[in-house]
Amino acid sequence: MDKYASNEENKETDKSGILEENLMAAKLKTALLGATGYSGLELARLLGRHPRTDAPLLLRRSAEIGQSGGHAAGLPHISGNGHGSSLVQPFSWSALEQRGVELLFLATPHAVSRELVPEAVTRGLRIVDLSGAWRLKQEQNRAVYGFKDANAQTAAELTERAVYGLPELNADRIAPAALVANPGCYATSIILALAPLLSAGIVDCDRGIISDSKSGVSGAGKEPTARTHFVSVADNFSAYSVFGHRHTGEILEQLALNSGQLIFTPHLLPIPRGILSTIYVYLKREMTADEIQCCFHDFYKGKRWIRVFPASSLPQIQFSVHTNYCDLGFCLAHDGRRLVLVSCLDNLLKGAAGQAVQNMNLMYGWDEAEGLQ
Amino acid sequence: MDKYASNEENKETDKSGILEENLMAAKLKTALLGATGYSGLELARLLGRHPRTDAPLLLRRSAEIGQSGGHAAGLPHISGNGHGSSLVQPFSWSALEQRGVELLFLATPHAVSRELVPEAVTRGLRIVDLSGAWRLKQEQNRAVYGFKDANAQTAAELTERAVYGLPELNADRIAPAALVANPGCYATSIILALAPLLSAGIVDCDRGIISDSKSGVSGAGKEPTARTHFVSVADNFSAYSVFGHRHTGEILEQLALNSGQLIFTPHLLPIPRGILSTIYVYLKREMTADEIQCCFHDFYKGKRWIRVFPASSLPQIQFSVHTNYCDLGFCLAHDGRRLVLVSCLDNLLKGAAGQAVQNMNLMYGWDEAEGLQ
Amino acid sequence: MDKYASNEENKETDKSGILEENLMAAKLKTALLGATGYSGLELARLLGRHPRTDAPLLLRRSAEIGQSGGHAAGLPHISGNGHGSSLVQPFSWSALEQRGVELLFLATPHAVSRELVPEAVTRGLRIVDLSGAWRLKQEQNRAVYGFKDANAQTAAELTERAVYGLPELNADRIAPAALVANPGCYATSIILALAPLLSAGIVDCDRGIISDSKSGVSGAGKEPTARTHFVSVADNFSAYSVFGHRHTGEILEQLALNSGQLIFTPHLLPIPRGILSTIYVYLKREMTADEIQCCFHDFYKGKRWIRVFPASSLPQIQFSVHTNYCDLGFCLAHDGRRLVLVSCLDNLLKGAAGQAVQNMNLMYGWDEAEGLQ
Amino acid sequence: MDKYASNEENKETDKSGILEENLMAAKLKTALLGATGYSGLELARLLGRHPRTDAPLLLRRSAEIGQSGGHAAGLPHISGNGHGSSLVQPFSWSALEQRGVELLFLATPHAVSRELVPEAVTRGLRIVDLSGAWRLKQEQNRAVYGFKDANAQTAAELTERAVYGLPELNADRIAPAALVANPGCYATSIILALAPLLSAGIVDCDRGIISDSKSGVSGAGKEPTARTHFVSVADNFSAYSVFGHRHTGEILEQLALNSGQLIFTPHLLPIPRGILSTIYVYLKREMTADEIQCCFHDFYKGKRWIRVFPASSLPQIQFSVHTNYCDLGFCLAHDGRRLVLVSCLDNLLKGAAGQAVQNMNLMYGWDEAEGLQ
Repeated sequence: MDKYASNEENKETDKSGILEENLMAAKLKTALLGATGYSGLELARLLGRHPRTDAPLLLRRSAEIGQSGGHAAGLPHISGNGHGSSLVQPFSWSALEQRGVELLFLATPHAVSRELVPEAVTRGLRIVDLSGAWRLKQEQNRAVYGFKDANAQTAAELTERAVYGLPELNADRIAPAALVANPGCYATSIILALAPLLSAGIVDCDRGIISDSKSGVSGAGKEPTARTHFVSVADNFSAYSVFGHRHTGEILEQLALNSGQLIFTPHLLPIPRGILSTIYVYLKREMTADEIQCCFHDFYKGKRWIRVFPASSLPQIQFSVHTNYCDLGFCLAHDGRRLVLVSCLDNLLKGAAGQAVQNMNLMYGWDEAEGLQ
Repeated sequence: MDKYASNEENKETDKSGILEENLMAAKLKTALLGATGYSGLELARLLGRHPRTDAPLLLRRSAEIGQSGGHAAGLPHISGNGHGSSLVQPFSWSALEQRGVELLFLATPHAVSRELVPEAVTRGLRIVDLSGAWRLKQEQNRAVYGFKDANAQTAAELTERAVYGLPELNADRIAPAALVANPGCYATSIILALAPLLSAGIVDCDRGIISDSKSGVSGAGKEPTARTHFVSVADNFSAYSVFGHRHTGEILEQLALNSGQLIFTPHLLPIPRGILSTIYVYLKREMTADEIQCCFHDFYKGKRWIRVFPASSLPQIQFSVHTNYCDLGFCLAHDGRRLVLVSCLDNLLKGAAGQAVQNMNLMYGWDEAEGLQ
Repeated sequence: MDKYASNEENKETDKSGILEENLMAAKLKTALLGATGYSGLELARLLGRHPRTDAPLLLRRSAEIGQSGGHAAGLPHISGNGHGSSLVQPFSWSALEQRGVELLFLATPHAVSRELVPEAVTRGLRIVDLSGAWRLKQEQNRAVYGFKDANAQTAAELTERAVYGLPELNADRIAPAALVANPGCYATSIILALAPLLSAGIVDCDRGIISDSKSGVSGAGKEPTARTHFVSVADNFSAYSVFGHRHTGEILEQLALNSGQLIFTPHLLPIPRGILSTIYVYLKREMTADEIQCCFHDFYKGKRWIRVFPASSLPQIQFSVHTNYCDLGFCLAHDGRRLVLVSCLDNLLKGAAGQAVQNMNLMYGWDEAEGLQ
Repeated sequence: MDKYASNEENKETDKSGILEENLMAAKLKTALLGATGYSGLELARLLGRHPRTDAPLLLRRSAEIGQSGGHAAGLPHISGNGHGSSLVQPFSWSALEQRGVELLFLATPHAVSRELVPEAVTRGLRIVDLSGAWRLKQEQNRAVYGFKDANAQTAAELTERAVYGLPELNADRIAPAALVANPGCYATSIILALAPLLSAGIVDCDRGIISDSKSGVSGAGKEPTARTHFVSVADNFSAYSVFGHRHTGEILEQLALNSGQLIFTPHLLPIPRGILSTIYVYLKREMTADEIQCCFHDFYKGKRWIRVFPASSLPQIQFSVHTNYCDLGFCLAHDGRRLVLVSCLDNLLKGAAGQAVQNMNLMYGWDEAEGLQ
């Protein structure tokens, strides 16, 4: 029996009368590097209340200012009494060892992740990386990140071994993975909407797929910039990174599309969190709404964090914000050939920290919903 | 031993090996009338995941349109799969009996509550009423509601028996109460900020206490009106009901103030939820920030849902939204005589549904935090 | 010389020493029916300060509640001192006659406009109609409105005579028109972005054109509904009327597209005003950004209210809100075949009231910018 | 006759047939240092369309990044075609001389203003300074700014000569002033609300005056900080600088209050612009609403930019935003002794740039509304 037992096994344990303290002892030891950004703070919060893990060891690189998870970060609810007892410590390998950490979450810039992961893997740590560092298999897609690897050979091997952490598509490979590359938020919303249709082979990819995606401001990061200033965002809306957003490569690779088949246009919404992607596809043959509906239901049967809406009933950002759901809906044109998909999720949960926890759940054989309800 | 055991007792039960199903059987049966407003929806959500209660029986008066808790209400996450299986049934006493309901929550207009409560009490139900129907003991404060009681005698008796459900002040009387009048959202934020200081006798009440309070729009109810139209609220801010808000009576009664001693001015914030009250008091004698701090800490010692901030560190609405906390902070003028208090809470949680659950927890001897974390 | 002289003529008049009072006497008499909605209020404001028109006669149908343009409507700045002296009078033909009204603006529901316009034209009034009543020439596009005409023959003739009031495309026909059908807000943003490219014959229309459009809430009207409630809109974003929005017909007709060639998806933005359309087109041949840029510049040469942005520099909603501009920008894919257009305007100005004034300016030979700066 | 004639004189000039070019030649030459902040940008826009001034010379200190008024600043409507032709030039005295500038606007940090004004005055320039550098006469109030004057004697003299530029109170002294200190935005909203009552001697100042003020984010400046990040502000509300805001001194001095008589608490609203102050005063004797109303009307008789609302009808931020109005309203308690005042204005117009233009109008004998409608 595994040390971190699944729900089912655990229940039996309960019945056999083992004391709670013993169960406590078996909790997974995790660490989180980069708990100061929005995704990192959300992940710290989720790990802090996850029934199968100890409070995570919160770490920062020396360069980062020593913000605690408390008042300074504007999130007093992380620490028990609101007054910041949970300190963020400087990162060191020995700190991880001392604590007996098995699973390391990285909510760091991709360059930091690219630098640390090789040693972490060598040291036997399992990793869920929230950056873009290990998501891409194809050279041409990685170019946009400009990785500078100390050891190109190791980096190439790890790139190959890394599993793209989209649980609904890759659960089998995530379970045993040493290195899980947590997907981008936009990419999650788009891939989950398209995968069932592409898998069914009903999309005319050559006619072009378009994802017009809109994200709340937390997706742009916590760094104060002219672009994230309240006055720049409020009462405003704008497109950005047209034909050039970094998540494009992930989408192409996961969906096996070529770059000419997809246009992905991100936009900035004047809301704190949430993503809605409106996706346009042309079908190879005339279809009915029922057929489309079935295609989604079959594909996502038993998937805990996907909600498929009835035909012509569309998800809205409010429905999934503060949850780990990806909501999917569609409208089919009268001609049965043109399809509009709408995909919504919370960019900090299903699009980042929630999905990271979902990946952890898979990696340790726990219920996919554990700690996410 | 009580049927709905407290946490502590429960743990022992666990150890003695009683099967989970038995514990399940002991869950409290509740009903909720009025699950279509914001507070009602929030309460339905909280009760749905409370470990000590069964899924609540959701009820509506025949006049209400039969909105399910699903898509129609814009809140698909209430029902398991997002597609509205949790039906709201027409209210009847027999429906309550059939289900074996013991505790009835009312999230109805005050007139409905005033009408139903007498019979509910007669039928042996315990009640947590979220309206203003039973909060006020003094005739002159009730006038603003214009109650029309079928049986004045019974109504008067129940008015007397009703306990004002502010757990931090009245826990002892809430525990055995048949009828708990859940406080108003503004009133909660103001009373909790002032109670420690008034109790300590350090406020010069005759010089006047002012509460300049600001609430998010969910506090104005779900009814679409010109006032709650997005275009009226966004990029705007306004005062309303100056010298005439219904919550004034509650505040005066609970704090034993006369009407000349308090000015309470509500304002409408362009945000969905959250209340911040900025409260101005003059002290009877020169004091230090430490003394004020102690006053709060002593008064709220062990109170799970109060967070007292360090001197000059003030709560913000974001800190407590989506939690059941009431956050309290203060700044003291250099003269040690003038004090500015800031009190924040989520008007739908600590200001309504969360407090209702907290009251239920007290009424059944459970941990005050049960189902609220 | 025309009674309502153009700017240029006017200057000469000035020099010749004609007294200001005489010029005053020559101001155009206008009336506005329906000054209570957002577009109507904005139009009342614009006409009130237009140098060539008298203060408009503000009218309402008896059914409308007698809201003045003052405090009740939340817009005290319309009336001089903020206290609502500008009364809205009940509509009657004699009221128009008495005032000597020549130009009638209708900011009414389309059914009202369809009912009143035939008589208005008979009475020799010129009309700018802001509703959808007279915009569509093709039967199948009108169906969605369900017009019920008292006199089908007259209605058909007027439908034929009505000029679609998009000044940048139809200035010559607007100038002498008796009945100008002011375009829809979404339609304006989309037609202005596509017209130059379609006119140049460089778009592969059969591959499909997609307009993913986003509008602020004032576009949804002033009626308080569940959908326009602040709590429904704030922190939210949603698509609506997919494959079924009424503006679709206008776009198809003005751009000579068939319904299979266009997908238009409206979305609701959590902002009070402004529209951004992201439009996707495939080009017939590989082109350069310079060629596209030239195409726009040539087409809109001398057009006062169009701003063409440099390649890859995209307009944002904030740039055009509170102005009468339509801002146009684009990004061209590396393959030179796929083009993303971004078009922004203020839905109440260039998308409604501002464009109505621009049409009036053309109808009376004035500078297109008169009263709009 | 003055070179920059008032409206009335100008009309006669028109009639006498003087050519427009000559009038053009007589336009006032202005310069604006610091056109990159919100107030500066707004002022550049106002001056650019003011009928009595040439386009202002826009200047920056070398340290500032050379942002044009165009796209980079997100405000393309300042420059004619939206593409930034209006360059901001490096500041130098010779640039001012060459252009023949007579009036210099400073929208700079107070230290810069404190440094430049002495020389500017020596060079015969008139100055409207939007910073806090010259607003305060009393040493103890200036302390909070920490001025470091090169020449203490000159600075002291200028401090004495500077006129506090609140046109409704100080018009006579503003007209001939060499140095006008444009008031703070909060201070304007509070002083204008209280001046009539204090002037009438009806306020019991010793019982304490409280101003609970709320401002939109543009008041916090354009600098991107953690505090102005969209995610920090949206869905939030907070108090700041309690008992310590810099504007306190201005209010005390202009209203002749001592520091113990006023509590001023600023708050940050999740909106881009606008200020609402809720002000609490106790009256010396019982009064009627009519008396209060008269007090305001008498005091502000003929004041173009003040709107006094009827009793119990309160201004809202939306009413005055994008105008130069200060809106004033009040509610009187039933006891006739306690008064709640509400004062609203646009912090960038009546609270900054609009008031600066109003001051210019007074300084040059023009109508107070010139260029502000």
